[in-house]
Amino acid sequence: MSGNTFGKLFSITSFGESHGPAIGCVVDGCPPGLEISVEDIQHELDRRKPGTSRHVTQRRESDTVEILSGVFEGKTTGTPIGLLIRNEDQRSKDYSKIKDVFRPGHADYTYWQKYGIRDYRGGGRASARETAVRVAAGAIAKKWLNQKFGIVIRGYMSQLGPIAIPFNCWEDVDQNPFFVADSSRTEQLEQFMDQLRKSGDSVGAKISAVADNVPVGWGEPVYDRLDAEIAYAMMTINAVKGVEIGAGFASVTQQGTEHSDEMTPEGFLSNNAGGILGGISTGQPITVNVAIKPTSSIRLGRRSIDKNGESVIVETHGRHDPCVGIRATPIVEAMLALVLIDHALRHRAQTADVICMTPKI
Amino acid sequence: MSGNTFGKLFSITSFGESHGPAIGCVVDGCPPGLEISVEDIQHELDRRKPGTSRHVTQRRESDTVEILSGVFEGKTTGTPIGLLIRNEDQRSKDYSKIKDVFRPGHADYTYWQKYGIRDYRGGGRASARETAVRVAAGAIAKKWLNQKFGIVIRGYMSQLGPIAIPFNCWEDVDQNPFFVADSSRTEQLEQFMDQLRKSGDSVGAKISAVADNVPVGWGEPVYDRLDAEIAYAMMTINAVKGVEIGAGFASVTQQGTEHSDEMTPEGFLSNNAGGILGGISTGQPITVNVAIKPTSSIRLGRRSIDKNGESVIVETHGRHDPCVGIRATPIVEAMLALVLIDHALRHRAQTADVICMTPKI
Amino acid sequence: MSGNTFGKLFSITSFGESHGPAIGCVVDGCPPGLEISVEDIQHELDRRKPGTSRHVTQRRESDTVEILSGVFEGKTTGTPIGLLIRNEDQRSKDYSKIKDVFRPGHADYTYWQKYGIRDYRGGGRASARETAVRVAAGAIAKKWLNQKFGIVIRGYMSQLGPIAIPFNCWEDVDQNPFFVADSSRTEQLEQFMDQLRKSGDSVGAKISAVADNVPVGWGEPVYDRLDAEIAYAMMTINAVKGVEIGAGFASVTQQGTEHSDEMTPEGFLSNNAGGILGGISTGQPITVNVAIKPTSSIRLGRRSIDKNGESVIVETHGRHDPCVGIRATPIVEAMLALVLIDHALRHRAQTADVICMTPKI
Amino acid sequence: MSGNTFGKLFSITSFGESHGPAIGCVVDGCPPGLEISVEDIQHELDRRKPGTSRHVTQRRESDTVEILSGVFEGKTTGTPIGLLIRNEDQRSKDYSKIKDVFRPGHADYTYWQKYGIRDYRGGGRASARETAVRVAAGAIAKKWLNQKFGIVIRGYMSQLGPIAIPFNCWEDVDQNPFFVADSSRTEQLEQFMDQLRKSGDSVGAKISAVADNVPVGWGEPVYDRLDAEIAYAMMTINAVKGVEIGAGFASVTQQGTEHSDEMTPEGFLSNNAGGILGGISTGQPITVNVAIKPTSSIRLGRRSIDKNGESVIVETHGRHDPCVGIRATPIVEAMLALVLIDHALRHRAQTADVICMTPKI
Repeated sequence: MSGNTFGKLFSITSFGESHGPAIGCVVDGCPPGLEISVEDIQHELDRRKPGTSRHVTQRRESDTVEILSGVFEGKTTGTPIGLLIRNEDQRSKDYSKIKDVFRPGHADYTYWQKYGIRDYRGGGRASARETAVRVAAGAIAKKWLNQKFGIVIRGYMSQLGPIAIPFNCWEDVDQNPFFVADSSRTEQLEQFMDQLRKSGDSVGAKISAVADNVPVGWGEPVYDRLDAEIAYAMMTINAVKGVEIGAGFASVTQQGTEHSDEMTPEGFLSNNAGGILGGISTGQPITVNVAIKPTSSIRLGRRSIDKNGESVIVETHGRHDPCVGIRATPIVEAMLALVLIDHALRHRAQTADVICMTPKI
Repeated sequence: MSGNTFGKLFSITSFGESHGPAIGCVVDGCPPGLEISVEDIQHELDRRKPGTSRHVTQRRESDTVEILSGVFEGKTTGTPIGLLIRNEDQRSKDYSKIKDVFRPGHADYTYWQKYGIRDYRGGGRASARETAVRVAAGAIAKKWLNQKFGIVIRGYMSQLGPIAIPFNCWEDVDQNPFFVADSSRTEQLEQFMDQLRKSGDSVGAKISAVADNVPVGWGEPVYDRLDAEIAYAMMTINAVKGVEIGAGFASVTQQGTEHSDEMTPEGFLSNNAGGILGGISTGQPITVNVAIKPTSSIRLGRRSIDKNGESVIVETHGRHDPCVGIRATPIVEAMLALVLIDHALRHRAQTADVICMTPKI
Repeated sequence: MSGNTFGKLFSITSFGESHGPAIGCVVDGCPPGLEISVEDIQHELDRRKPGTSRHVTQRRESDTVEILSGVFEGKTTGTPIGLLIRNEDQRSKDYSKIKDVFRPGHADYTYWQKYGIRDYRGGGRASARETAVRVAAGAIAKKWLNQKFGIVIRGYMSQLGPIAIPFNCWEDVDQNPFFVADSSRTEQLEQFMDQLRKSGDSVGAKISAVADNVPVGWGEPVYDRLDAEIAYAMMTINAVKGVEIGAGFASVTQQGTEHSDEMTPEGFLSNNAGGILGGISTGQPITVNVAIKPTSSIRLGRRSIDKNGESVIVETHGRHDPCVGIRATPIVEAMLALVLIDHALRHRAQTADVICMTPKI
Repeated sequence: MSGNTFGKLFSITSFGESHGPAIGCVVDGCPPGLEISVEDIQHELDRRKPGTSRHVTQRRESDTVEILSGVFEGKTTGTPIGLLIRNEDQRSKDYSKIKDVFRPGHADYTYWQKYGIRDYRGGGRASARETAVRVAAGAIAKKWLNQKFGIVIRGYMSQLGPIAIPFNCWEDVDQNPFFVADSSRTEQLEQFMDQLRKSGDSVGAKISAVADNVPVGWGEPVYDRLDAEIAYAMMTINAVKGVEIGAGFASVTQQGTEHSDEMTPEGFLSNNAGGILGGISTGQPITVNVAIKPTSSIRLGRRSIDKNGESVIVETHGRHDPCVGIRATPIVEAMLALVLIDHALRHRAQTADVICMTPKI
């Protein structure tokens, strides 16, 4: 209710600041009997962690996760799973300069106005560091969804600033530092990023994600629709400014004959719906696009004010991602997994007795 | 929890099918002492109601609202407000043909798979008719937000299919049947719609909305952010496929120097953030764009299947909006109002003691 | 969140004042496919309704329920069920005298202090009239629990003021105006009540309830335990001051050898637990006792104050139950049913894959 | 939703098993600006911790709490507070004998049936060890309530098995190992406990608690009443079987003239209501009684079954409290504090604008 719990039946309650002792979360509602190990979670954390290439922040965090509860002899017990990640590489003094200053595009000003106090070190609670716990919890969700339904959730960066990178194949995504689905574009992107970093500026990105094999029937209309909760989930990720399901904003110029997906006994003939109709999954792949704004922390001077209301110029020299979108793909995947597992559980609460109707296409 | 309640501290719980006896909702959490009358609510309902021009559905519903509780001697008492709208002009027989058929682009198939049973008349619960209760509840929210904080929430249709209609002035919006903010475009739009209607096809639209005078500090990070809940709210509206806050998808190609809004003692110099940073309102106008898909119910034949899995051609001859976007503006405004009032109450729960910090810009 | 929704996955959201136009509720989360008719609900309402004997209030309410949504061709559809009961026999002028006065033992003073405004007619929202909607919703819950699991929920008045009425048989309960489980005591109770009514005073009561055939495994530890939510549910009923599960307060003087229920391959040997261990149902009958205070509205003069803080003597001459406990049995049953169905759904959300373990006793 | 979160606006989400690596919780919604230190929390934990006298379990846990987030430079920031307590003195091998056996009166059987898997060591999640995190979170709630409203929450053991110990004075409570409010009874109680321990049996207890200085107006009718949520809170404590507010079960035999508390310009003349009318606080002290069953883990042999359904005799020789009620007082206080702070925040969400009415008595 106070904003730090995500999900209703499979929920994560998150805590932690960027430069405090630790971040972590409590995963509540995980079905019992799922085999889960630290390695399962660590694998996903490693995909997101900082310092893996020169194109992302050089903060060194091993992001080592500890499972504190809820797993017994290698299996979930149905009780809450406590996850803990100690912060290791805080350079809080990097932030002493911005203690009394509001960085443009950051939450500095709004946290201070809201709470009357803020942990200014590294953005405190507003830091994207918090997303590590989502990725950790998402790893559990992903595993259950895959084991139980064969669901596969995958994302990729589909645009980096002005450069669109069309999907080529899933195999490429983890073979390059940008999570693009076409590794042949790597050099082009590296050159772009090197130049950007030199310029001291930052850039936005677009992430696309797909969930395959989601069964028909998930989603709770009329408000807790699957698409509505995906939109919510994506917009909770730091720096996200837009969300599309299926055809998204392209729907605006489409006509009904083009947009609405025809059905045949063999299945749907298109997927403008993005796998969701009336807020309920259709059985088709669920497709999502997310717009990520450029990093607000840049080296170039920007006009702002300090706590006394005086004009200042802010330059940010800490360790920052010049494109926060680059590490966002695992986070988008995790949020999609968290929405889906929650809806899987909600769906069977009310409709466990409903035998799937035929025809199922 | 089962999907038909929106909001946490100011919540609406909705019920009703398109062709059942009535639709309605319970508004819980409205602060006591607000003067509210049937007229206040009816005014907003009339903006949305069907049959007001030839460009929308010809179903005749007076949408007369009855206040069943929670208001005493003209003022809210703090107890739940029951709102009831009787359905009047159901032509359920129009729907007997589609009883066993799934209309492409509709929720027919998904409701049937989810629940194993569906009220096929007029889309049942999945009909946009349900949005009338949101508009009714939104009228209460709007009034409170305006009286208490001077907040003004306004929307307009910014694009109709291929035709973008830039903002001219707010006064125009209620002076034309399209809710566009430039009445000089009315004739062009009428011609477009007349032709579309003749063709039997439908088209998408884009709605833009702005909330002015929202105080700094609303929004509950890190999940129940103001932007995340706006995205959720918008995506709960039938036919919505995309949501943007502030610069939205344009952020993808922006650089940090362009996107992040500089601050001076006199205020922000731009509003790419759309009035929200770190999930918390900045005090700037909150700006939202919503993509609405073309109506799925069209006269032109479309391939589909029936309950036996046989191929069928579906033509929809009932009374439908050729562009559902046309009547969507009051709904978008209502949802924005419902999110804002909910966050107004949540904000003061935790932070009622926080004196607003200076400088406030 | 604002207090008028009960339940999480099977929830009721209630509205309405004693002397407003109507009371009602929205039932959300009811599984689809349940046959339900107005008669099913009316039957339970008639058990609770006023005016059925000289021992209860003489207000004449037919308590006719209308189903506004969620039921199609005689079956639930999974969408929210709107229930409406019009108020008929309001004699609001009875209450003009207490408009500015706080009746001792009533919520008059607290509502006024909380909200700064109150509908004083008949207690407004604080009236036990609201419990009619619980009974209506409970009828749906009872039917589903019975059809799906064979669960039988029954209550009886086990004590009327100083007179304990031990359980004799269930058949008797609906054969006397007191809901006692031993009709041979009827005359004694009638004499007691006649005398009490003459005296102008009122009296408390104890209600006992049992749920048979509840499966093992329901309840969500460690907070949303089945017993905790039963205690909550019972204490939401007007005038309830105490709740016991199983041995209840008798546990205080018991020793472990006496209290803890031994198990054999044939089952438990006793039921001090009241069918719940660790917050989870054991498969034994769930047993609950509820203490109900004497009606606060009595004819005898009582000291109080008015809105100006002046001393007044309050006599209440309206139509009141001299023992609110008499009509409470159907309400206690309804609340127990509402808790159980909610937990039935919650249980299968997380554990639908768990095959019931052997031995099951 | 899955049972491990308590509270809505000030919420704790708990995790941890008795013999796992750690227990802990996330406190979300704490108002910013509260000075809080490890010592503030440790003080309350020390009151509850095991091993402090020969009358309680000899398990040695320092119960050292670590604050992981949400506190910056000694003050709460409004962000979630992560609390961690490492388990230290697990003797898990004590439990190998009961691995395949269900202890009578314990949650062993129900957890196993519910989840199909259980951490049998020390009761796992069902252990009263979990209550340490409630006491830790309660310390924060207590401090805020006291600083903000002068609220004082105190409890005491009012009955130990057959021995009632009437209230003498608050000062005595922390001066004896039983939390009784009359230290002159200590010797009698020690003799009773020594004999009980020798016998191998256990005994129940009654805890009474009072909250002074609670303002009028807290509580959200008609379901989330203050008394209903107190009943819920108390029944979530391990071993609790009954809850009373105010006169409780004594109300059953009271008449209206005796029970309902008269009011004068100087205040209420009695407090049978226990400080709550219509679910809303009256401004009087809130009074609660709680029945605690005898410890189920006893040395004396008890009939039970094992996982194969075979008859077994269970004797429990681990380290257990012969009366779990002895250490329950701080837990009852904590739960009362958690309910009150949650309602403090909920109250001001909706009614922050309501100026307290006169007369206020």
